[in-house]
Amino acid sequence: MPRFAFRIEYHGAPFCGWQRQSAQTSVQAAIEAALARLDPSHPTVSAAGRTDTGVHATGQVGHAELTRDWAPERLLEAVNHHLRPHPIAITACARVDEGFHARFSAIGRQYLFRLVSRRAPMVLERGLVWQVRQPLALKPMQEAAQALIGHHDFTTFRASLCQAASPVKTLDELTITEHPLAGGAEFRFTLRARSFLHNQVRSIVGTLERVGAGSWPPVRVAEALEARDRTACGPVSPPQGLYLTGVRYPNDPFSS
Amino acid sequence: MPRFAFRIEYHGAPFCGWQRQSAQTSVQAAIEAALARLDPSHPTVSAAGRTDTGVHATGQVGHAELTRDWAPERLLEAVNHHLRPHPIAITACARVDEGFHARFSAIGRQYLFRLVSRRAPMVLERGLVWQVRQPLALKPMQEAAQALIGHHDFTTFRASLCQAASPVKTLDELTITEHPLAGGAEFRFTLRARSFLHNQVRSIVGTLERVGAGSWPPVRVAEALEARDRTACGPVSPPQGLYLTGVRYPNDPFSS
Repeated sequence: MPRFAFRIEYHGAPFCGWQRQSAQTSVQAAIEAALARLDPSHPTVSAAGRTDTGVHATGQVGHAELTRDWAPERLLEAVNHHLRPHPIAITACARVDEGFHARFSAIGRQYLFRLVSRRAPMVLERGLVWQVRQPLALKPMQEAAQALIGHHDFTTFRASLCQAASPVKTLDELTITEHPLAGGAEFRFTLRARSFLHNQVRSIVGTLERVGAGSWPPVRVAEALEARDRTACGPVSPPQGLYLTGVRYPNDPFSS
Repeated sequence: MPRFAFRIEYHGAPFCGWQRQSAQTSVQAAIEAALARLDPSHPTVSAAGRTDTGVHATGQVGHAELTRDWAPERLLEAVNHHLRPHPIAITACARVDEGFHARFSAIGRQYLFRLVSRRAPMVLERGLVWQVRQPLALKPMQEAAQALIGHHDFTTFRASLCQAASPVKTLDELTITEHPLAGGAEFRFTLRARSFLHNQVRSIVGTLERVGAGSWPPVRVAEALEARDRTACGPVSPPQGLYLTGVRYPNDPFSS
């Protein structure tokens, strides 16, 4: 059966996360319902990253098998039509061969976390960032982040219900940049790895926020990593600042 | 009476614009209601720019006179507290002398217009940009924009109900930049002038969009300007892409 890859954008707020669950609306169920309007076989969709409740995506990737062939541009339009009014959009669609699997073919994931420090409430980007009221210092967060880059046992930064076989991962990038904002500042965390543990990004950002606020000395992050102990982690950040921004494959299905 | 200046951010969608009107919620009325909770004199607020229905602001400036003196930081917190749950935030507050008037002391206004071209619907920034489905070309829009920069009679780009004494204005800046976006592109228009005519920015952007879409040759914008005729204008863009981003004064009240 013809297989298609989709690049998917969504606002996390109304959903219980990517994965289909009974009695709650998931991104997966919403897309599968749209596909069911187009294809009598009720296609299922597999995704590269099973984002949690409230987490956004600009570059999620999924794939599905349909019974008939489609021009990718027409399929994109049709799925987007049936997705309304859900805040989900297919931003790219491509025909892929049977060897492509959105999750198992992926060789890299990239996340963005948006953390805002200001006293005045957010009005334009409410629900799109994690806001704290205290000032944050960039340099100590950047210093502490260095310890996390590379090949490590990330047990400290892993949800207790994480199902990954091993806590050892390689964090290829963890950069933090500061951006001006009226009455405060925004800090953008970019994280890149082949794959992540459950809650790893939110555990890392929540911990680095403690460093930025001055509650933790930067060295405590390296010590927490070395402890390989979930109780050594800082608070886990809330989901609304987190975005799955991209998934990498040996051959980008959307490149042509 | 002590006079205070406020830098104000708001989401335009729920409001009938800045100016107080009977039977509709305006940004001005919401802020005045918050101030009335703090000051028995029911202070009025004057703003630098009377934004239209649906237009956003990140850098609106207003001023008000209160009966008692306040530490600016405490006043900011108190007004923001009473503004909830309106999507309005005071992002800076300063004590100013009686010679300061948010509107009449202003010597410059800056606007941003966000125009998105893509076929897939917007999900994260729904209501924060003007979206069109056709592709737009940057270069012809930039070329056409050149004709509008400088000192001109902007009758063509002025709402018929504009109350300004003269249609002659000096547009100091009109720059357009292109930014990548999944499945499309975003174009950001930055406009700067001492003051603007009613609907001038939206008339200019709506006209330049026609050029970007290929419906108008760039030279037609210069011809429309020279015609000094409202009927020569392109379509007026909708309000949700427009942001009042800043107001300039001889002495910035928020600089210290």
